Order: sequence, then C-alpha cells, then structure tokens
Amino acid sequence: MNDLETDDQPGFIERQVRRHRTGQTALASDNVGQEWPVALVFNGISHAVMMCTPRDLEAFAVGFSVTEGIVERGSDIHDIEVFFRGDGDTLPHAEVHLQVVQQAFAALKNKRRALAGRTGCGVCGIESIELLDLLPERVADTGFLARLSDDAIARAARELPAHQQLTKLTGGLHAAAWCDESGAVRYAFEDVGRHNALDKLIGHLILKREDTTQGFVFLSSRASYELVRKSARVGVPMVVTISAPTSLAIAIAKQANLRLVSFARENSFVEYDVE
Amino acid sequence: MNDLETDDQPGFIERQVRRHRTGQTALASDNVGQEWPVALVFNGISHAVMMCTPRDLEAFAVGFSVTEGIVERGSDIHDIEVFFRGDGDTLPHAEVHLQVVQQAFAALKNKRRALAGRTGCGVCGIESIELLDLLPERVADTGFLARLSDDAIARAARELPAHQQLTKLTGGLHAAAWCDESGAVRYAFEDVGRHNALDKLIGHLILKREDTTQGFVFLSSRASYELVRKSARVGVPMVVTISAPTSLAIAIAKQANLRLVSFARENSFVEYDVE
Repeated sequence: MNDLETDDQPGFIERQVRRHRTGQTALASDNVGQEWPVALVFNGISHAVMMCTPRDLEAFAVGFSVTEGIVERGSDIHDIEVFFRGDGDTLPHAEVHLQVVQQAFAALKNKRRALAGRTGCGVCGIESIELLDLLPERVADTGFLARLSDDAIARAARELPAHQQLTKLTGGLHAAAWCDESGAVRYAFEDVGRHNALDKLIGHLILKREDTTQGFVFLSSRASYELVRKSARVGVPMVVTISAPTSLAIAIAKQANLRLVSFARENSFVEYDVE
Repeated sequence: MNDLETDDQPGFIERQVRRHRTGQTALASDNVGQEWPVALVFNGISHAVMMCTPRDLEAFAVGFSVTEGIVERGSDIHDIEVFFRGDGDTLPHAEVHLQVVQQAFAALKNKRRALAGRTGCGVCGIESIELLDLLPERVADTGFLARLSDDAIARAARELPAHQQLTKLTGGLHAAAWCDESGAVRYAFEDVGRHNALDKLIGHLILKREDTTQGFVFLSSRASYELVRKSARVGVPMVVTISAPTSLAIAIAKQANLRLVSFARENSFVEYDVE
C-alpha cells in the first residue's frame, strides 16, 4: 500500500453525473463530499475506524480522544502523525497515529480487556446498556451565558453559511462552528459526519489552547445525544443547532446544565425543557 | 428496573419550550423525536446498543441482524421479544432479545473472540481498516430496473411526505420507504437515525416475506456508506436519496452494481458515476 503523495485532501472529489430534469437528461460533473475510513491508532494499536472527510485529521484525532474520554486533556497526547494511504486496488483511507501518555494507554488497554469480546455498534462500540455513559459532567457556570449578547444566535446563524465552503460545493456536509459571546464565528469545520465536524472543532480549540468554556458551539445539523455529550465533556456552556433536537439530547443537556437551543434562524430559535 | 407498561412508544414526546422570535419570547409545548438506547441481545448476550426511536423495534432488530451479517436470513431468527424499561432513576431504554440459530450464534461468538479487546467506534464497532467490509455483494439484475416506470422517482418524492408523520410532528426524523416499480410508497419507517430507519424497513420487508430485489429504497437523508452497504446486502437494486451522496457511497454502489440516485425531487434527480 502506497502512501498518497498528498497532505490534507480537498474534502470533495469530482464525479461524472447524469442530471435528470423534467424528462431531459444531461451529462455533467459534480462535486461530492469525501467519505474515507479513518483509523485512529493509539501507541501502535488500532482502536477505532470512523467514516470521515479527510481534512483536519489532526484536530479530529485530538477532539475524538478528548470527547470520548481516551485522554483527559490535549497535553496527554505527545505526538500525532497522519498517513494517507491507498493504491489502485484499495479504496483510499487514512490512519492517524497518536502517542498518548502511558496512563491513558494503560487505561485504554484495561478498558479493552474488560470489554473483551465486544463487537459493539452504534454508540462508540458500546455493547450493553450498563456500559453506556448517560451521566455527563455538569458544565460549570463561568459567566459566559450572562455575557452573551442578545443577538449572538442570530449573528452566528447569519455568519455560518460563509464558512461552509464544502457544503456549498457538494450540498452534503455538516458544519460545526465556534462562536464568541457576540455570536461571531471564530472557527468552523466541515465533515460528512456531524460528530466528526464537532470533534474537529473541539480538537482545534484544544490545539489552539482556546478556553472551551468561553464560547458556544453552532451546528448545522440536528442535536442528538452524542453531540451534547461530547460538548459537555469539555465544558461548552451552550450548543445551538439549526435543526431539531432529540429527546435524549434534551435530557442530557439538562443533566449537564448545558443550554440547548435548536431551530436556530436569523430571527428565531427555540429553547428546550424550560421551567 | 421496571418494565414500562407500554408497547411501542409514540415516537415523540411533548416538551416545554421557549420560542424566541424577533426579540419576543413565548412559552409553548413542542413535540420532540424520541431517542432511546436500544440494546440488541442475541441468545442472552448483549451485542450492541443503538440510539433509536423506540417504535417498530422488532422490525429494526430483524433488519439490523440481516444487514450487519449476524444472520443470513430472517428465518435464522427463532424468536424476538421487545422490553421497554426505565424507572425514575434511569433514562428509559429498550432491550430486544433475539434467539438466533446456533450456527449464527457460534459465528457471532467466534467473531467476538477474534476481535477480543476491541473498543471500536464509528463503523459498527470496527477497530481497524483490515476489518472493514468494503466489498459488497454484487446485486443481481432481476429485471426490476428495466421495468421501472419513467416517473417512479418523481412519484416516490411526491408521496413520501405523507408517510412522514413523526417528521411532521417533530421536524427531526429520517424516513426510509419501500417503493414499487411505479414509485408508489408501499411501506415507510421513521427514526432519529437514518440507518435505523433503513434497518426497520428492511426488517419489515423480511418479516412480510417481501422480495427485497423487487422494489427500491427511498431515503429522506443523504446517502452515506452504510446505507448503500446495508441495501446491497439484501439485493436492493436502487437506492434513492433526497440529499447528497458521499464519495464512498458512490464507490460502494458502483462495486455492488446498485443504482444510486440522489437529490431526488418531484421534477429532477441526479445519477452518479455514469460512463
């Protein structure tokens, strides 16, 4: 298998398509979002494969490691290398090799031993209800929400589209953005998977040593369990989504004391489970 | 833990919300899609937990078992029981207990032994690229596509919304529908997870002893890898989605000889990787 001679991928590829419209057809080319298997390898041992858009994989790996509790903090990761692989016979894929502190690796190995035989699916490989982590950390009140400007959500909703380059090209990716108290979009990441986009964003914040308690997450997607869970793990005080929340996202946000806002538009939004 | 005194859940719950619109706020109640942890237990051993809308769980379990290759066919499942659980202290969840033929259970146990220690995540618990199944069965040509009526896709696009009751109530679920050669929607299932909606649909077809090679799947979502992979496993000749496909969905569809159509509307659609 040869390493591809590239760094980050563009995030999209061109494909030949046939467009059908009211009975007429035309050949054309179209941009499609890249979805690659990306293996996360900790201290030489492959741990997980995610279907992911192959950009910003270093940030993705840092974010995943922290939001899934594999390491406590970014500084527990000593080294990261990203390899793009593929040849004529195999679909392209990527591997991210992380060197993590011995304590985290020992904990991961113990967890693997304790879970020996799992063939989990769905919730990060969880195989039984008992192993499911439905008790999020409570997000500490650091005063951010009190400082939030009245039109912060409207501003974020207005600004986000300008940061969705891949979505503009392909029509098919999710975005996760980090916004300050005025609602200005500070960073945004895109991925075919909404949880990957969020992991890229959180990883980037950690790499930049930004304070994850002093801003809010704005997502182009719906709010489901894992997005709230991941945000709570790094103390994000508010998660805003463009589309609907699920019942479990609302319940987990309440347990975590995290403000959940959905159906966010330039002139309206909805808050859930208010008293 | 007490069993809940209910059968299928409604699929949505009412929550108190605060609506904000152009500076005004109002208290209201809103319907939210149910997302529950659902454990799949094979011959007494818990195998996977999926975040799922707790309706049609018998069909879901049958579909998941077949599309994930745990059993070869529906008749390999001898018995299914669905339990709804929860009390004041725990979030509600469900367990589906399946009794499968000894051969399938032995294979599952062997797989679990071979994968001992995995803590996989993302792609059904896959922990390394080598374990990833990127070689779908080729879908046999049974003549269905040749019989497909010219406006079948348009008709399916037109009919689907009438089958999305939970989406109408909550704004936040995905639908998977089974359509015949005229594009008429025969069955439709909804879920907070698009792959769950598809598993419910495929499971229902299997329970009804419908021929999964004589119809097409219409999805309200984007087309990603696992949706094409699951459809190919039961010989579905065409997958149509309302939103965009990913690069891997296109590649897997081509390998499987499965027709992939996206951006399906009443008067237009796009086919990918045409010659």
